[in-house]
Amino acid sequence: MELRELLVGLVLVWLVAKVAGEGMERIGQTAVLGELLAGVLIGPGVLGLVRETEGLHALAELGVLILLFEVGLESNLDDLLRAGLQATLVALVGVAVPFAVGYGVVYSLGSSALLAVFVGATFTATSVGITARVLGDLGRLQDAAAKVVLGAAVVDDILGLVILAVVTGVAQTGSVSLAAVGLLSGKAIVFLVVALLIGIRLAPTLVRWVGRMQARGTLIVYSVGFAVALSAIADLVGLATIIGAFAAGLVLATTERRHHIEERIKPVADLLVPLFFVTVGMKVQPAMLNPFAENAQFGIALLLTVVAVVSKLAAGLAVYQRGVRRWPIAVGMVPRGEVGLIFAGAGLAAGVIEEDLYSALVVVVMLTTFVAPPWLKALYRADK
Amino acid sequence: MELRELLVGLVLVWLVAKVAGEGMERIGQTAVLGELLAGVLIGPGVLGLVRETEGLHALAELGVLILLFEVGLESNLDDLLRAGLQATLVALVGVAVPFAVGYGVVYSLGSSALLAVFVGATFTATSVGITARVLGDLGRLQDAAAKVVLGAAVVDDILGLVILAVVTGVAQTGSVSLAAVGLLSGKAIVFLVVALLIGIRLAPTLVRWVGRMQARGTLIVYSVGFAVALSAIADLVGLATIIGAFAAGLVLATTERRHHIEERIKPVADLLVPLFFVTVGMKVQPAMLNPFAENAQFGIALLLTVVAVVSKLAAGLAVYQRGVRRWPIAVGMVPRGEVGLIFAGAGLAAGVIEEDLYSALVVVVMLTTFVAPPWLKALYRADK
Repeated sequence: MELRELLVGLVLVWLVAKVAGEGMERIGQTAVLGELLAGVLIGPGVLGLVRETEGLHALAELGVLILLFEVGLESNLDDLLRAGLQATLVALVGVAVPFAVGYGVVYSLGSSALLAVFVGATFTATSVGITARVLGDLGRLQDAAAKVVLGAAVVDDILGLVILAVVTGVAQTGSVSLAAVGLLSGKAIVFLVVALLIGIRLAPTLVRWVGRMQARGTLIVYSVGFAVALSAIADLVGLATIIGAFAAGLVLATTERRHHIEERIKPVADLLVPLFFVTVGMKVQPAMLNPFAENAQFGIALLLTVVAVVSKLAAGLAVYQRGVRRWPIAVGMVPRGEVGLIFAGAGLAAGVIEEDLYSALVVVVMLTTFVAPPWLKALYRADK
Repeated sequence: MELRELLVGLVLVWLVAKVAGEGMERIGQTAVLGELLAGVLIGPGVLGLVRETEGLHALAELGVLILLFEVGLESNLDDLLRAGLQATLVALVGVAVPFAVGYGVVYSLGSSALLAVFVGATFTATSVGITARVLGDLGRLQDAAAKVVLGAAVVDDILGLVILAVVTGVAQTGSVSLAAVGLLSGKAIVFLVVALLIGIRLAPTLVRWVGRMQARGTLIVYSVGFAVALSAIADLVGLATIIGAFAAGLVLATTERRHHIEERIKPVADLLVPLFFVTVGMKVQPAMLNPFAENAQFGIALLLTVVAVVSKLAAGLAVYQRGVRRWPIAVGMVPRGEVGLIFAGAGLAAGVIEEDLYSALVVVVMLTTFVAPPWLKALYRADK
């Protein structure tokens, strides 16, 4: 009976995810938006077709690990070092300003400091995958601005994971103290540095050894096993699991089998990642956004969206190089995408964020992700 | 905490599965045997390192569906029709004799008719994948005998699934009546025929339609979604889920995208299928096999193994074509492999088979799988 519910749930989730994702891509948006909307539609908040059973939850959790593993695998540490100071500065401003403004607005509305920290952290996220795709469609990936945005993306992923580690740690202890934040940041940075240093040194030997195995599927099983192992270690030392999966991707990206691993992880990601986005959407309660209802979060969602967009544009101010355009960089940093959702989800799981605010935050993430592609296209169209 | 247990469990399961599987392949055996033994070792019966949590169980269940989907995808209905009467006859004898003998021996030992039916059904299974591999290693895949064995394999998979459908149905009602068996066989055959007829007619249109989608991963998600959907339908009409997954594989094997699907399903199978075999091994209680313990199943396991091997050799008697050697066919049908395990597992899940007999049956399956490769090699070596 449980198995049947899981099977029927999977079929429905995959079907709506693919149909909605395809629809969004056709109108120039990202498939992730479609998957989120599909989740809202089939979830308990609207049609109630699918429930997040333990099996589905486990698959969705694996999905987000595979997603971050893939992001790490596609990141290039060398590119990051080359993009250098300009990209790092953009990333830092694009993290600091949204955090400070988000925290300030929520705290001044009368929320607890802990809640304000979570909202601020959600605002720091950047999903430059979406921007990269739009720039690619426009044939602008070789622009100086594009290189800065993509370099900033890697820095931002790393900063975001450190912030997430801190924020989930703070949620566990329940209080925001400078000492605790310092300890957690230190732990997250030490984890990343140690994992990368040891990993990059050992990976070539391991990959060579795996290459000598005769049994089928050795490379994919050891690669994913490595990502899951680092995720478990991150969890054991009190950090977010995804920081481990991301670190595993960064490590394996330095090996000669990188492309083989990318190719094999793709179908696995194709199956599992939509489960994550759809279940995120399923947790949204659209009734709480209804502007005519009591306790409506509609106004909050709109206000937070404006704050999220404007504060992120500040990243454009960090551009100091001549010949690099500010606006494409500023707008390119706006989409919050999957990282923002992970932050909001961590807050919900920790009991810090209530369901109504969670719904509002998912809407904020969706709107920021929604506005960026047409805006970027308009910026470049104005050039001609 | 639950997530951590799942992650640590996955890492351990993958690690021992790959190490033991590789070891078995190196000594000329199949990786599945290593995965089963690894499961026995880390399971509650011996070291107790890993527990089958709900998440791990869900992943293992998906694993067996993916496995049967892959088996279906690699089967060729045309080959089967061409192998024709000789292969069908071998398959029928190889199913009927082990069932009758297995049922007779267990029933005469004083067990219930229902239990005897399950043991008989477990004995009907044939895992010719193992034989195909050994014949391939020996360069004998073009022999007349090899063609008969491989043709019989497809017939046997279909017969096995019909038997499994009947047996699980019988377990649900709790009694063995001729009418019930007739109804269930009819249902299973109708399901397969309807799924294949409708599927094969619609599949080309669907595949063409999926080919026009732009979003990433459409083919793999729709293919696996189709397999899961047919599994859920099989479950809804009271049949075993795997019959649906197998039918989906057979249907998609007739499309032009067959090889694309096979290629994409491979890494997914590589990750999930070992989880199934390891969790099967984890349910074995080696203490119950200890010949010096009370209630020891060691003698039973040995007796059943002899019965299982000898009764399956009868399939060789069904060879009537000249120039086709009996012995390679007889020995080639002996390994019970994954299908036998699925039968025993269905009996355990239905509460018909107790843990002690389940442990004995897994040992029977492992021993039949273990003896076939060296025996086949010896047969061909004697030729020279």
